[in-house]
Amino acid sequence: MLKNTIEIPVRFSEVDSLRVVWHGHYVKYFEDGRESFGKQYGLGYLDIYDAEGLAVPIVDLQLQYKRPLEYGDTAIVETTFINSPAAKIIFDFKIFSARHKHLVCEGRSIQVFMSPQKQELFIVNPPFFEAWKKKHKLM
Amino acid sequence: MLKNTIEIPVRFSEVDSLRVVWHGHYVKYFEDGRESFGKQYGLGYLDIYDAEGLAVPIVDLQLQYKRPLEYGDTAIVETTFINSPAAKIIFDFKIFSARHKHLVCEGRSIQVFMSPQKQELFIVNPPFFEAWKKKHKLM
Amino acid sequence: MLKNTIEIPVRFSEVDSLRVVWHGHYVKYFEDGRESFGKQYGLGYLDIYDAEGLAVPIVDLQLQYKRPLEYGDTAIVETTFINSPAAKIIFDFKIFSARHKHLVCEGRSIQVFMSPQKQELFIVNPPFFEAWKKKHKLM
Amino acid sequence: MLKNTIEIPVRFSEVDSLRVVWHGHYVKYFEDGRESFGKQYGLGYLDIYDAEGLAVPIVDLQLQYKRPLEYGDTAIVETTFINSPAAKIIFDFKIFSARHKHLVCEGRSIQVFMSPQKQELFIVNPPFFEAWKKKHKLM
Repeated sequence: MLKNTIEIPVRFSEVDSLRVVWHGHYVKYFEDGRESFGKQYGLGYLDIYDAEGLAVPIVDLQLQYKRPLEYGDTAIVETTFINSPAAKIIFDFKIFSARHKHLVCEGRSIQVFMSPQKQELFIVNPPFFEAWKKKHKLM
Repeated sequence: MLKNTIEIPVRFSEVDSLRVVWHGHYVKYFEDGRESFGKQYGLGYLDIYDAEGLAVPIVDLQLQYKRPLEYGDTAIVETTFINSPAAKIIFDFKIFSARHKHLVCEGRSIQVFMSPQKQELFIVNPPFFEAWKKKHKLM
Repeated sequence: MLKNTIEIPVRFSEVDSLRVVWHGHYVKYFEDGRESFGKQYGLGYLDIYDAEGLAVPIVDLQLQYKRPLEYGDTAIVETTFINSPAAKIIFDFKIFSARHKHLVCEGRSIQVFMSPQKQELFIVNPPFFEAWKKKHKLM
Repeated sequence: MLKNTIEIPVRFSEVDSLRVVWHGHYVKYFEDGRESFGKQYGLGYLDIYDAEGLAVPIVDLQLQYKRPLEYGDTAIVETTFINSPAAKIIFDFKIFSARHKHLVCEGRSIQVFMSPQKQELFIVNPPFFEAWKKKHKLM
C-alpha cells in the first residue's frame, strides 16, 4: 500500500472565528498531501504534465469532518493511493491532530486524465500510468 | 422547495495555471450560496448564533466537478434546502456557467447543531429550527 | 478623476479568530476593486491581454489598516485611478465599513506592462494605454 | 540581528493563469515567516496572547515584487526583526527562489499591541516585550 505522511502546522489565517480551521482549508491540506505523495513516488502534477502533456483534474471530492483542529496544533496528513482498474487516480486522506492524536477529517479525491486541450477524457489508463503501476507492483 | 440563486464573477486569483477555477474555490462558492440562502430565508450563521448561541459546523461535504469554469465567466450558484427529519441542515448546490449555460459543479453540504463549547451535539432539532421549518411549511 | 465603487459582503471564511477580516484578504478586495474598475472603464486584465497580449503584474502593493472589519458587515471598496506619466497603472484604494461608515483600510497598487514571455518590461506606455488615457481625457 | 529562514514549496493552488504565484499569496508567506520566527524566538501570536492577553494586529504592510515565482520552485523566506523604540513589532521579509537563487519579493509588516477588546492601543511597549528585547540584547 503506497502511503505518504506529512505534517502541516495550522496557520493563523486558516482559523475561523470559532478558533478552528475553516472547513474549506482541508481541500488545501488534501492537495498538500497529494503533492507530497507525488514527490515521494514520482506522480506529481509536473511529472505527469512534463512526461505526457496530461492534466489530471479533480472530478470528485469528499470530506467528512470528525473533530475541530485548532491554531497551535499541527495537521498530520496521510495520503493513500487506492488502486483501481479504472482510468482514474484515487487517493484517500486521513488528517490527524498531532496534539490530540485523534482523527479530525477524512476524505477522498478522484482525478481523471485529460489532454491539455481538455476535450479528450482518457477512458483507459495512459501508458505512463500503467508503467508507474507496474513499477510499484500495483498491476 | 426553498432555493436561492446568486451570481459570482470568477476572480483572477481563483484561476489556476490551467486557466480554470481551482477546485478548492468551489467550497467558497458553496458557502457564498449558503450565506445568500441564509440572508433570504433568515437562516444565516449569525441568525442562528445570535438567536440560539449555536454553531452549525460542516460535517460532510461532497463535490462533483463536471466541466471547467474560466476567468471572465460568472458562476451561477443555486442553493436548495433539503428537508430531513434528522437534526441536520442539508443543502444541495448546483453551479452553472453563465456564459455556456451548462452545469460545472454540483454537491452537498451537511451541518449539525453544536453548543459553542463544541461539546454537545444536538441529536434532535433545536426549537428555533423547528419553528423555522414550520414558518416555511417544511413540517 | 476615474473612480469605481463596489460592495463586498464579508465572508465567514475571511474572518479570523479575532472575529475580524484577516489582513491578507484585503489584497483580494483590492483586486475585486481593480476588476470592477476594469469592467466599468474597459481596463480589465482580459481587455489588456486580449487587445495587446500584455500582462500587467503587480510590482508594488501597500496597505494601511485603520480599523477592523467584522463578519456581518460589508466592505465598500473605492478604487481610484492615479494618473502618472510613467509606464505604470496606479490605483489607490479606500475600504469603508458599510455599517460604521468609517475607513477600515487604504492602500495602493502599482502595475507594469510586460510581454507574456515576461522578459520585456515596457519603459514607455504601450499605444493602447495612451489611447485609453486620451479617451478618458487623462492626457 | 534576529533572523529566521524557512522554505515553503509553491503550491499548485497558489499559481495563477500566468503560471506564477499570485501576488496576494505572498502575504501568507510573510505570515508563515513571522510564525516561524515566533516559534524560534518565543514571539508567536499565542505566546503573546497567552502571556499577556494581547493581540498584535498588522497596521501596515508593504510588498515589492521583483521577479515571478513558479510552480515546482520553493520560496525561501527570510524574516528579520527590525528593532525600534516605538511600541511596534516590525519585520522585514526577503523571499528568494530556491531554484534561481534570486530575490523574488521583499517587504515589511508593522504590528501594534492591542487589548483583546481592541479599544486600547499601547503607546509604550508592554512589559513582556521589553523583557523579550532585553533577553535578546535588543535594549
